[in-house]
Amino acid sequence: MITTDICIIGAGPVGLFAVFEAGLLKMRCHLIDALPQVGGQLSEIYPQKPIYDIPGYPEIKAQELVDNLMEQIKPFKPTFSLGERVDHLTKQEDGSYVITTNDKTQIHAQVIVIAGGLGCFEPRKPVLENLEHFEGKGVAYMVKNPEQFRDKKVVLAGGGDSALDWAIYLADVAKRVTLVHRNETFRGAPDSAAKVFDMANNGKIDLILSANLKELGGNGRLATVLLEDKAKSQIKIDTDYLIPLFGLSPKLGPIADWGLTIDKNAIEVDTTDYSTGVDRIYAIGDINTYPGKLKLILCGFHEAAIMMHSAFKYVYPDQKLSFKYTTVNGVNAF
Amino acid sequence: MITTDICIIGAGPVGLFAVFEAGLLKMRCHLIDALPQVGGQLSEIYPQKPIYDIPGYPEIKAQELVDNLMEQIKPFKPTFSLGERVDHLTKQEDGSYVITTNDKTQIHAQVIVIAGGLGCFEPRKPVLENLEHFEGKGVAYMVKNPEQFRDKKVVLAGGGDSALDWAIYLADVAKRVTLVHRNETFRGAPDSAAKVFDMANNGKIDLILSANLKELGGNGRLATVLLEDKAKSQIKIDTDYLIPLFGLSPKLGPIADWGLTIDKNAIEVDTTDYSTGVDRIYAIGDINTYPGKLKLILCGFHEAAIMMHSAFKYVYPDQKLSFKYTTVNGVNAF
Ligand SMILES: Cc1cc2nc3c(=O)[nH]c(=O)nc-3n(C[C@H](O)[C@H](O)[C@H](O)COP(=O)(O)OP(=O)(O)OC[C@H]3O[C@@H](n4cnc5c(N)ncnc54)[C@H](O)[C@@H]3O)c2cc1C
Ligand SMILES: Cc1cc2nc3c(=O)[nH]c(=O)nc-3n(C[C@H](O)[C@H](O)[C@H](O)COP(=O)(O)OP(=O)(O)OC[C@H]3O[C@@H](n4cnc5c(N)ncnc54)[C@H](O)[C@@H]3O)c2cc1C
Repeated sequence: MITTDICIIGAGPVGLFAVFEAGLLKMRCHLIDALPQVGGQLSEIYPQKPIYDIPGYPEIKAQELVDNLMEQIKPFKPTFSLGERVDHLTKQEDGSYVITTNDKTQIHAQVIVIAGGLGCFEPRKPVLENLEHFEGKGVAYMVKNPEQFRDKKVVLAGGGDSALDWAIYLADVAKRVTLVHRNETFRGAPDSAAKVFDMANNGKIDLILSANLKELGGNGRLATVLLEDKAKSQIKIDTDYLIPLFGLSPKLGPIADWGLTIDKNAIEVDTTDYSTGVDRIYAIGDINTYPGKLKLILCGFHEAAIMMHSAFKYVYPDQKLSFKYTTVNGVNAF
Repeated sequence: MITTDICIIGAGPVGLFAVFEAGLLKMRCHLIDALPQVGGQLSEIYPQKPIYDIPGYPEIKAQELVDNLMEQIKPFKPTFSLGERVDHLTKQEDGSYVITTNDKTQIHAQVIVIAGGLGCFEPRKPVLENLEHFEGKGVAYMVKNPEQFRDKKVVLAGGGDSALDWAIYLADVAKRVTLVHRNETFRGAPDSAAKVFDMANNGKIDLILSANLKELGGNGRLATVLLEDKAKSQIKIDTDYLIPLFGLSPKLGPIADWGLTIDKNAIEVDTTDYSTGVDRIYAIGDINTYPGKLKLILCGFHEAAIMMHSAFKYVYPDQKLSFKYTTVNGVNAF
């Protein structure tokens, strides 16, 4: 069991900055994110795109903002469970909570902060008869740790950046990489697409275009993938893994069942402190809603600051919060 | 008469960023500040101190943040009246306002945003019998434009950074600079103090220590300043200008009389849109108050974003606001 002051669900920009505001008040944080990396929408959807409305940055690439936030919170030593989805929340007798993830990790915290953005990014799955049967037994929807695929046969499916980038990366790791795509052209970056065509021409990967996933085979574990092309002819491939990379779609998921007031997929909060109405549970960033709400990164930063000042009383019930400017006290002095 | 969509009182960090949020919605701004430079408390009180809680900046000097904000709002071409205090507000028949400054500048705007921080920085004045008589006629409390003093005789009084910095600067501009200070040592930066002692030794300026301002003389315009030292002996100096630099203290000032709800020197606002209750007048940044308020720069940024979305209806009554991410549209596309 991991023990912390504050458990933050979602390691997007808002969850990350919340660690800083907590740290200034001497509260420690553990973050959980369903994605294998931090940064939320910024890292997952538009890492290389410039943002223009971060105050003080006339222009900053989304991933650079995430990197800077990670640097900024370093003094407060946050801990992370990445690639895990929060499933359950159990209230303890003393008012604190225990959170359980889909990987059965347990975190005990005094306060829960939901910074879940648009919700948990869930993979879009191909429609295949016995798909669930092979999930975790050869079928994976994200690459958490590339080493898992060392010297294995891997089939990747998809036409976006993830499929291209992982095909290029895993070519050096896996025994054999096959990339399957239902069209002739790729949606991903032209550079990456050109590189993939090049690697296919040089025999570094197998590229199968205009083909769809049709059937999975194997005894307990995945062993074969059957493809069908436009002309309805079929190809069977021996493989250890199938990784369909058809994009992620966000879902509020299990959080919807925690007794919070939900309006159009967002959690209603009180703007005094961004509390949800359920004791010791706050919601900040894109996932909350209130009159006038704007789904902007800079608004989530403000919400994080206000929220942590309110949460202080649960972590230090006997202390009075004394508010100090960082300029006056620095960061390590806290 | 200057005509603009939005008139912002206060060019501190929050007033500056408000220009950006207005610009994204195609609204133009004019800013007024009593200080001769932009940046509010950051530029006036702690320009060289590092701030640690600007999201995305593990550390940034206050003046650097101000410079970056100026860069960020450049595409929206804000205009400024600096060194002027807002004195009057007159409501027009159509709901818009005309603002008048102490220099009689007039600005016509659809919406007023008070981003006045701790209030107007008013100079601390020496206690001298006929001081007011000479204000604007030889007595000045800030250096708005150093060229005003070219080839003139100037007496500076004070022991902080402003007095030291201006003594050094004006030595090359004025005919003669005399620096008067009531102590033997300076409160300002040791470097600057050393430089001032050096210049005095080399005859570049006159330095009179342990002396106080006693009396002003002149027929209509200032002509002499009488000083008295510890031993009560008196020195009379012929001069064109006296600039007492005894620091600034913020005062809410005339804004207090505009019918706004004031609580402990701050303006009460509705957190839905940071409106004041008086039609078309908003208050953001350090100058407002609401349950949970934190006087932080990052909170003012959020307030500016929300507030501008609300003000849109007064500037474009016939249009529907369409909200777009900067990443998607860029800044010049707006
Ligand atoms: C293309 C694009 C351009 C944009 N441009 C701008 C812009 O210019 N300016 C701007 O301010 N905003 C912009 N945005 C919006 C901005 O990205 C969001 O406001 C921001 O990401 C919200 O941050 P967050 O931390 O609240 O949530 P997110 O970034 O969505 O992060 C939430 C995280 O929580 C995780 N999570 C959710 N539920 C669970 C669970 N049950 N278990 C585990 N993890 C969970 C998710 O996996 C996710 O990583 C843009 C968005 C897009 C898509
Ligand atoms: C030493 C120090 C350290 C700080 N450290 C931090 C920190 O680490 N982090 C943080 O977030 N905050 C910090 N702060 C607070 C921060 O500076 C303020 O929150 C911020 O300046 C507020 O910005 P603002 O734009 O609302 O107001 P201000 O910066 O106060 O600017 C308001 C401006 O309005 C002008 N004005 C007011 N009334 C009138 C009028 N009638 N006519 C014309 N002009 C007028 C004033 O001259 C002033 O320039 C610190 C403050 C100090 C003093």
